Amino acid sequence: MTRPFNFSAGPAIMPEEVLRTAAAEMLDWHGSGMGVMEMSHRGSEFISIYENAEKDFRDLLSVPKEFKVLFLQGGGIGENAIVPLNLSRGGEVDFVLSGSWSKKSYKEAAKYTKTNLAASSEQEGFTYLPAASTWQLSNSASYLHLCTNETIHGVECHRLPDLKSMGSKSELVIDFSSHVLSRKVDWTKVGCAFAGAQKNIGPAGLTIVVVREDLIGQALDICPSAFNYKLISDADSMYNTPPTYAIYIAGLTLQWLKKQEEQGLKGLDAIELRNKTKADLLYKYLDQSELYTNKVNPGDRSRMNIPFYLKDEALNAAFLSGAKDHGLLQLKGHKSVGGMRASIYNAMSIKGVHNLIEYLKEFEKSRS
Amino acid sequence: MTRPFNFSAGPAIMPEEVLRTAAAEMLDWHGSGMGVMEMSHRGSEFISIYENAEKDFRDLLSVPKEFKVLFLQGGGIGENAIVPLNLSRGGEVDFVLSGSWSKKSYKEAAKYTKTNLAASSEQEGFTYLPAASTWQLSNSASYLHLCTNETIHGVECHRLPDLKSMGSKSELVIDFSSHVLSRKVDWTKVGCAFAGAQKNIGPAGLTIVVVREDLIGQALDICPSAFNYKLISDADSMYNTPPTYAIYIAGLTLQWLKKQEEQGLKGLDAIELRNKTKADLLYKYLDQSELYTNKVNPGDRSRMNIPFYLKDEALNAAFLSGAKDHGLLQLKGHKSVGGMRASIYNAMSIKGVHNLIEYLKEFEKSRS
Repeated sequence: MTRPFNFSAGPAIMPEEVLRTAAAEMLDWHGSGMGVMEMSHRGSEFISIYENAEKDFRDLLSVPKEFKVLFLQGGGIGENAIVPLNLSRGGEVDFVLSGSWSKKSYKEAAKYTKTNLAASSEQEGFTYLPAASTWQLSNSASYLHLCTNETIHGVECHRLPDLKSMGSKSELVIDFSSHVLSRKVDWTKVGCAFAGAQKNIGPAGLTIVVVREDLIGQALDICPSAFNYKLISDADSMYNTPPTYAIYIAGLTLQWLKKQEEQGLKGLDAIELRNKTKADLLYKYLDQSELYTNKVNPGDRSRMNIPFYLKDEALNAAFLSGAKDHGLLQLKGHKSVGGMRASIYNAMSIKGVHNLIEYLKEFEKSRS
Repeated sequence: MTRPFNFSAGPAIMPEEVLRTAAAEMLDWHGSGMGVMEMSHRGSEFISIYENAEKDFRDLLSVPKEFKVLFLQGGGIGENAIVPLNLSRGGEVDFVLSGSWSKKSYKEAAKYTKTNLAASSEQEGFTYLPAASTWQLSNSASYLHLCTNETIHGVECHRLPDLKSMGSKSELVIDFSSHVLSRKVDWTKVGCAFAGAQKNIGPAGLTIVVVREDLIGQALDICPSAFNYKLISDADSMYNTPPTYAIYIAGLTLQWLKKQEEQGLKGLDAIELRNKTKADLLYKYLDQSELYTNKVNPGDRSRMNIPFYLKDEALNAAFLSGAKDHGLLQLKGHKSVGGMRASIYNAMSIKGVHNLIEYLKEFEKSRS
């Protein structure tokens, strides 16, 4: 039986192989007599799961050794507070607003630190990422916050800014929740990166933080201990009970990623090429269509989240109902922006995108 | 094949039936074409899972309608900060220390509020729960924090204090993480109760908070939005992406609990009787033994976590190795107190406790 194609923005499609392995190991992981959910986080079995997940994450993203990789409870909205609690040092923070997520982060940070709006595309409906050359940076910011993929507005940063060359002394903090592990990261430009797991990694309730060691240890006194990067780092993410099952599923996803191949490439190179192929196919179709439209500046379009609108919005319900009949699930856009959205994360196959395009064509033809 | 018996203190043993259902539904929940991990938290499928879990939790514990039940990210150590951030109103908080967990909560709360040590059994190695008649209550506390089951020291509160009758105007806040759903709760005495899921409910990374509505809405300004009870309550736990898969597993566990029967009793009554039976069997054996000892005051002994020591500690390694050979896993005590610990949560059968006692006897005999 073929499963339907699931275009949810998150929690989102998982590789079928990961789910099959998880199901098979549910009652007994590797002959231990325990399922992973039932293991003490301090036992040798879970420690090995954790260490492999961390190693595979580092390998895939080529994380330099001066960065710590932390596995935390929570999600992106939690990190909106946790990042300034850990990294602002009570000083100023620069923000670039390119969609709903960076806007939320900006509002939350203001509870803990002075914020400077360096740039925003809100007036234009978040249809582009403000060019780095236009950013009005503060002289005293401890970091600049950038959401490198806006899940709702479909805006992606395809080239990280080099803050040093822009005359800034601040660190770059990226929220890469919705495109983590979909492409390489230039760590020379980054001080800290964080990602909720529920788009490209695993179940909701896990957050991965990659932070350069010299930035750890300056949390505000009011930072909850469970979210203090220093305490978590010193305890190798076992300061409290981490979300063990989510880490296990993340580990299986990372193993799956390492095995991917595409046109002679392997691992993250393969998945990046495949993601580019998928996005190019879909944008190309949307751009020539008479019925559908994507409003994002072509140079800033997301490879992961592709919002689009039917020119006649009265057709939305019929479109979604027909999509479901064609095995294409969860295409409804976020309630704040309406329309449709196809989230095509790592686990979405090229075939899934082909099927979507076939349906888009068929629906357009039937209405013309 | 019989699975070994798993005495881990948490993450801990799960009902086999729950794991089997989760495995069977991993790729396709109820014909939806999606696994639960892959569902949008705002879709009708997950909403139904969430609503059923909340309803079953309320039914089992007879939660009155003036209380909200919130499903949050995180765990107990997170709540140590989140509770005072939400409920202290910047005033004073009373603490009763009866083990490692209440001590941790006490230290963390001091970051956000003035704390009053109402009573402590630390001098006596946390071997009892200080009697309510001895508590030195503050006149101005907004709440009193009590850990009603100390997982490490094996101390349980078997009768909730009635703060009103003690002349206090403060609310009772209980950390019932490690005995939640193992027994009934007298909600007339409680303002707020919280529990990390990983002992008696489901996977680590989920916390359930039961809080009386009139206490919600007075969080300190510095409370992270993702952990503000008011925001979470107003959004029916969907303010951010909740740990969806953990909520699903919790829901399966709650369904399992409702079906339990024991000597004509059903649901929580059945499980409470079974838990009492299991604990009585084990304590009775330990108390008559020449080799093993439990140091907790008999009236304050936990039904869930039973720490014990071998009088000759040199035998510890042989004891643990033999236990494993007998299919009895994770009996090692917490590193801070040493010795052994049998955690016999809801999912541990009477047969598991019988097998443990058989092994205790056999080991004792072989060493005498």
